[in-house]
Amino acid sequence: MKELKDRILAEGRALNEDILKVDSFINHQVDMELMSAIGKEFAEHFKDLGITKVITIESSGIIPAGMTALELGVPLVILKKASSNVLNDDMIHTEVTSFTKGNSYELSLCKRYITENDHVLFIDDFLANGEAATGVIRLLRMLHATMAGIGILIEKTFQPGRGKLEDAGFEVYSLARIKKLEAGSIEFMD
Amino acid sequence: MKELKDRILAEGRALNEDILKVDSFINHQVDMELMSAIGKEFAEHFKDLGITKVITIESSGIIPAGMTALELGVPLVILKKASSNVLNDDMIHTEVTSFTKGNSYELSLCKRYITENDHVLFIDDFLANGEAATGVIRLLRMLHATMAGIGILIEKTFQPGRGKLEDAGFEVYSLARIKKLEAGSIEFMD
Repeated sequence: MKELKDRILAEGRALNEDILKVDSFINHQVDMELMSAIGKEFAEHFKDLGITKVITIESSGIIPAGMTALELGVPLVILKKASSNVLNDDMIHTEVTSFTKGNSYELSLCKRYITENDHVLFIDDFLANGEAATGVIRLLRMLHATMAGIGILIEKTFQPGRGKLEDAGFEVYSLARIKKLEAGSIEFMD
Repeated sequence: MKELKDRILAEGRALNEDILKVDSFINHQVDMELMSAIGKEFAEHFKDLGITKVITIESSGIIPAGMTALELGVPLVILKKASSNVLNDDMIHTEVTSFTKGNSYELSLCKRYITENDHVLFIDDFLANGEAATGVIRLLRMLHATMAGIGILIEKTFQPGRGKLEDAGFEVYSLARIKKLEAGSIEFMD
């Protein structure tokens, strides 16, 4: 998506070979016009798949996932990223280990909002090692729901996320695919 | 706002005198059509105030705040709710003590995204004791920005949030004002 790539080149800050900061338009300050265009792009790409829900993880994916859900005319479901110690039969959980951030967190989902009839589109801001997406897939499987596809704003193609997800049979659609990061330099695929 | 009140009556669950769960359309599963209507309502109400940014706190306020920012044609700024121990001169912090939840957290804001020229609208899902809003006001003051107003989806009028904020000179506009909660029963003002 040209609009997103141009913005990454103009405002993204590559801190090193791994970290790209996009705080000025995606993660901290958010350009809602751009997010609306991103929602339309994802909706157009995935529109024929019979999607019933859009799912994301708090909090950076919420806006692009919400704009996609609005365009598709389906509800958004936001997975909580917290180790809840409230005993609640309605909730299911899975642990996600983030190699990128070097921590673990628990993803929680209420069973009422995803059922076996749901065909779900997962939207997230970054794809690196694919831990978040595989956590979402585990939760969907526990509820016998299916994953329709994965929409990503920024993919780090030099990390194994796409490979793992495609090997497991899932389609990954990324709006900006980064080939290489270095301090001060951002290189796209193609 | 009739649409929101009707939905609260249909799907909200009052667990006791303090807690109203709206997980099926605001906090966990999100009805994007309703959120779009809420964004339009806030934008219409606050449109003549010269608002330059909409601000919210992760993560339940993000969608209604984003829809309002989209309607007003201004950026959204999402305050992070974490005790960051990264030393970063760009960030300012303030501690918020939540009487409702019985915990404390640190709100963080990057100085780049709010300046002394900003006139800011704060949007949040709930207003109870007003701790979150007063934390946001403290951060705006540190940067010599001004608060244009406060937009709330659900106000618990039996708690002191509105009084504190109005005494400090701020306008609070709530879409649903709850007079009384009891297990299984929800009563609105008016």
